[in-house]
Amino acid sequence: MTNQSVRAVFWENRQVMLIDQRRLPGTFAVNGYATVAAVAEAIQAMVVRGAPAIGAAGAYAMVLAAHSSPAHDTAGLLADLRRAKALLDAARPTAVNLSWATARMLDAAEQAADPSVAVLQGLLLDEADAIAEEDVAINRRMGFYGAELIADGANLLHHCNTGALATVDFGTALGVVYACAEQGKRVHVWVDETRPRLQGARLTAWELLRAGIPMHLIADNSAGHLMRTGQVDAVLFGADRVAANGDVANKIGTYKLAVVACENRIPVYAVVPTSTVDLTLADGDQIPIEERSSEEVTHIDGVAIAPDGVPVYNPAFDVTPHRYLTAIVTEEGVCFPPFAVSLRQAKTAAEARIAAQRRQRRELPGGGGVVR
Amino acid sequence: MTNQSVRAVFWENRQVMLIDQRRLPGTFAVNGYATVAAVAEAIQAMVVRGAPAIGAAGAYAMVLAAHSSPAHDTAGLLADLRRAKALLDAARPTAVNLSWATARMLDAAEQAADPSVAVLQGLLLDEADAIAEEDVAINRRMGFYGAELIADGANLLHHCNTGALATVDFGTALGVVYACAEQGKRVHVWVDETRPRLQGARLTAWELLRAGIPMHLIADNSAGHLMRTGQVDAVLFGADRVAANGDVANKIGTYKLAVVACENRIPVYAVVPTSTVDLTLADGDQIPIEERSSEEVTHIDGVAIAPDGVPVYNPAFDVTPHRYLTAIVTEEGVCFPPFAVSLRQAKTAAEARIAAQRRQRRELPGGGGVVR
Repeated sequence: MTNQSVRAVFWENRQVMLIDQRRLPGTFAVNGYATVAAVAEAIQAMVVRGAPAIGAAGAYAMVLAAHSSPAHDTAGLLADLRRAKALLDAARPTAVNLSWATARMLDAAEQAADPSVAVLQGLLLDEADAIAEEDVAINRRMGFYGAELIADGANLLHHCNTGALATVDFGTALGVVYACAEQGKRVHVWVDETRPRLQGARLTAWELLRAGIPMHLIADNSAGHLMRTGQVDAVLFGADRVAANGDVANKIGTYKLAVVACENRIPVYAVVPTSTVDLTLADGDQIPIEERSSEEVTHIDGVAIAPDGVPVYNPAFDVTPHRYLTAIVTEEGVCFPPFAVSLRQAKTAAEARIAAQRRQRRELPGGGGVVR
Repeated sequence: MTNQSVRAVFWENRQVMLIDQRRLPGTFAVNGYATVAAVAEAIQAMVVRGAPAIGAAGAYAMVLAAHSSPAHDTAGLLADLRRAKALLDAARPTAVNLSWATARMLDAAEQAADPSVAVLQGLLLDEADAIAEEDVAINRRMGFYGAELIADGANLLHHCNTGALATVDFGTALGVVYACAEQGKRVHVWVDETRPRLQGARLTAWELLRAGIPMHLIADNSAGHLMRTGQVDAVLFGADRVAANGDVANKIGTYKLAVVACENRIPVYAVVPTSTVDLTLADGDQIPIEERSSEEVTHIDGVAIAPDGVPVYNPAFDVTPHRYLTAIVTEEGVCFPPFAVSLRQAKTAAEARIAAQRRQRRELPGGGGVVR
């Protein structure tokens, strides 16, 4: 029932492999990308999307940068890595996981004890693999913690796609749904189609059907009616960036959902790895909000649904102030208000874990120096 | 600038003429319907939509019923009219204007002083013409009253289509926008695309571009972000049925908008003719909510946007409790809370006006008996 495993991002034959999410649900295709620029373009074009997934894609792109660098010394390689990081980070501005992952890759290179080019290349692949593997482990832990909040028989309302496709595997908010199903809880999911890109209709519906989890697809506009008429027990979503105070930037439409849920006393849960938490920003109004093209609103698969030349405003994300959130589920546990305290604790715990894991990898036989 | 006149419903050559709104904005076509069943089907298929427009279409369909009736006596004709009313009323259950208009037509026939078949046929066409003409006049009056509530330079957020196409001409909530423009107020409209049927993207955007009124099309999900960031001064929409206490059934998504507007202290105005007010229902929970086909959500112009066989829930309307409304604009003036009082006053005033107009028509030379 819950064998929904889908590897959205992986490394194969010196390429970053990505499921082409623009073609789902019609076609399942995996594309290979061999250059940093090609990965950056794939992220911008949303071949891969979802904050954790683009983080992993960015990490592997840093491996590509190390392999393609003509530098013969460490200083030259590090300079090339910094250039690659800048190019990748600019691909999508809102999700912080991308710059978090590229920063972690750069840090791994800078901290290396034996900084020869060949060793650094191997070490960077290890670090990217670690980011990817940790993502899956982190998602399973968030699933475990999040499922504690969900009762048997619950009707859940879910926005955008936060499943296997939005991460390396398993998912964040949808990971909680999968964890509930694994535990034998009978849950039903109302799937917001999530205009304009329709990640709910195209991706979440595809994942849940595949996993055999009961669901109904709805127009985003129907969510309020369902909440007002008592048909929703909890609202779940992921996030692209969480500020230090708990304000959450997530897919456009999240704010409306959260406000209406609060008005109806329905709990609202954001499910996010600590890599999504950006303690450098005091609140959500400092999070940059990406605007995307008019065509996302005026055309669907090339078919025009609005008059030619109509002016469009198309922000890809909105900010939900923390007061509308019941809890933020992280891999370190469930954070409750005051989020300024609980998120900082979770972030500190996660950073200690990453440092310990990196030390452990280096101490293993062959650790840190195998060129693949 | 505001020459946006579009006659959505009219009578010509013994046919009910309707702009085919399913084909806009790509194609402007007017179809003729010669039978009651054909009009009922056109209403169900949303060739014509918008509560006042389907009311007028229903009224003219009652004229078709009178013309096609084989009855030689009044009793037979009235029986045929009652059957036609039942067929028409069932076409769409939520908007009350349809059954309001068919009831008014039946009432006109039943009240006729000279009940010969030929006289009744003429009288019914007069009554349908009166409903259509009054609709335009009513919309102009609502526009005048509503514009009083809107400041120069206002940013308005509008849901669905409530313009010339949703009425006989001019519109309800969009009529307020047109009235503002005629008065020289510089307004800008955020146009909710209004999934699933996209009446905002297809129809409202088309009307506003045609009228030269500044606008931006948005995904429905963007409305919350705009409200939270101070870019909306008022929210405007129409309604399909208003209960005696002021609860409003309107296009799905209205409830979410109204809740989020209240949360941000933005005024919310429903603009409705008194024919939309149903004093027989104490509150909105008694209003029947139409569910429409899955395909409205899973396909756009025949293109699949979700996996095959996905279960869908597709309510066409939601109910907004009256506490989220700042005012309800009617042709008799602006109704403020308590709506149970103000709506009843408006409805009584409107009924007196209709009765007076009918008396006036009958007293005119040739009134009430011309067969066209």
